Amino acid sequence: MSNNLTVKVFAPASVANVAVGYDILGFALMGLGDDVIIRKGKVEGLTIKTIHKGRSLSKDPLKNTAGVSAIRLLQSLGLEREPLEMEIYKNMSIGTGLGSSAASAVAGALAVNAYFGNPYSKMQLLQYATEGEQVADGAFHADNVAPSMLGSMILVRDNKTLDCIKLPVPNGLRVVVVYPHIQILTKDSRRVLSPNVSLKQHTQQSANLGAFVASLYKTDFPLMQRCLNDLIIEPQRAKLIPGFMDIKRLGLDAGALGCSISGAGPSIFCLCNNSHIAENIHELWSNYYTDKKQLFDCFISDINKEGAYVY
Amino acid sequence: MSNNLTVKVFAPASVANVAVGYDILGFALMGLGDDVIIRKGKVEGLTIKTIHKGRSLSKDPLKNTAGVSAIRLLQSLGLEREPLEMEIYKNMSIGTGLGSSAASAVAGALAVNAYFGNPYSKMQLLQYATEGEQVADGAFHADNVAPSMLGSMILVRDNKTLDCIKLPVPNGLRVVVVYPHIQILTKDSRRVLSPNVSLKQHTQQSANLGAFVASLYKTDFPLMQRCLNDLIIEPQRAKLIPGFMDIKRLGLDAGALGCSISGAGPSIFCLCNNSHIAENIHELWSNYYTDKKQLFDCFISDINKEGAYVY
Repeated sequence: MSNNLTVKVFAPASVANVAVGYDILGFALMGLGDDVIIRKGKVEGLTIKTIHKGRSLSKDPLKNTAGVSAIRLLQSLGLEREPLEMEIYKNMSIGTGLGSSAASAVAGALAVNAYFGNPYSKMQLLQYATEGEQVADGAFHADNVAPSMLGSMILVRDNKTLDCIKLPVPNGLRVVVVYPHIQILTKDSRRVLSPNVSLKQHTQQSANLGAFVASLYKTDFPLMQRCLNDLIIEPQRAKLIPGFMDIKRLGLDAGALGCSISGAGPSIFCLCNNSHIAENIHELWSNYYTDKKQLFDCFISDINKEGAYVY
Repeated sequence: MSNNLTVKVFAPASVANVAVGYDILGFALMGLGDDVIIRKGKVEGLTIKTIHKGRSLSKDPLKNTAGVSAIRLLQSLGLEREPLEMEIYKNMSIGTGLGSSAASAVAGALAVNAYFGNPYSKMQLLQYATEGEQVADGAFHADNVAPSMLGSMILVRDNKTLDCIKLPVPNGLRVVVVYPHIQILTKDSRRVLSPNVSLKQHTQQSANLGAFVASLYKTDFPLMQRCLNDLIIEPQRAKLIPGFMDIKRLGLDAGALGCSISGAGPSIFCLCNNSHIAENIHELWSNYYTDKKQLFDCFISDINKEGAYVY
């Protein structure tokens, strides 16, 4: 099955949690993401030849999310001895809360799959990509991996069995993301979370998730605005991100449908139902962190409906 | 605005919680429900003349859910002094877990509204009907009232503001209900519930609710079957209902999409995607309680898409 093909794959960044779906909801972004190239190697097994712009990452395939996802897939195909060479382009910083490690894991699995003639569907590849992502994250969950692979807004009904539902994305929905250049340690981001929630909070928050799903099917933006409200996770994590409450207030006052922390942070996202509002928020957020002399990146994106692709 | 009209209203029974939406999800049943008649009275204000088949209920309008909902509506219209006479037909037992008090509350408000020429929409009447239901239940929540009023499957995004979403009901969806004639005190049914849930349970259970909403929009019965699973409330309440685990096992083994407690019980319901399965479960459940010498009612219903109506 070995060949002389060179396969290039792009896998997008993603926003997980999305205010109402801690660990179970995420959507893919446009433009930002990682590339992985797979070609025939010179020695047995998978070698990571180069990681562009990702100096802190290991070139040991077993310590790299793209490497692990590729190897797990190769094992499942019985091809782990095939000589393969991987190149990774980390086009996004590490620790942004925008699914960088998940994007690499997705690209690794999809590239190997394409190299061997696509034996698996994208849905089947989720297993290997999620195993890859686990190297970085510790937990086995697909709220970044699944949207990066499949595109769109994904509800992970069950992380164990990767029961993923692709939800519809209304036309006109736009995202603004701001990434303040600060570091949040994942363990801090986890440690601040109480292991329990009140039954009342659970009830209210699941109603918000259920209503958010309905708002996507109905293209009901006013409903989306009423339910995009995190009663549980965001209040506990907000203090880890300097300026979060100001940024959120600026976004909501300017007409965002909702604004919350992307994944474990520090990136912050908002959803808007038109470009004018999105551009306004982009300017407000940029001015805010500029005034505070805080380095940042800020961009506007559509929700990526395609997910990872071979090019 | 006084007239000589006689208005008759029917409001259906309902199943609340529906396994995945404690306090926020419910659907209306066919056939079973309460009737309320409103006509001109002989003295100032609202009088309850007769309650048929509801001997334990108070004829004091302020202690009766139909009376309270009617009076609150009359107050809002400035018509609380109009001479009105109410007759209530309680066609369902009290304390079944099938929304009996909610059906009366809905019928009371809808009948008065019709009597005065329909000044309010059904959605606006929810407020008064929920205030009526509160007399019986103590809490202000609309998971029985809203489906009884509006029909279909209703997600109550927020009980405080009665932000209700009418979800689509796939064709072919059938319900089997069994009501074992035992008494569960609402206070017991509340007392067994822990005030907290783990973050993990919250996450899994809200994913099930989100997926259930998606399954209704997609008409995806296999997905509905995977998510109709109550991890939080049912395990705590099951012990209050003799035979619950046997009944549930019989239903699921026979192909039900899901089976759980209706409201606070003791009624048990299951959802099925065809009549053959529903009829089979009806027989199995009937035989079960017959063998146990437990009095019961068992019936098959469609989901009522219309809700309460004037006839």
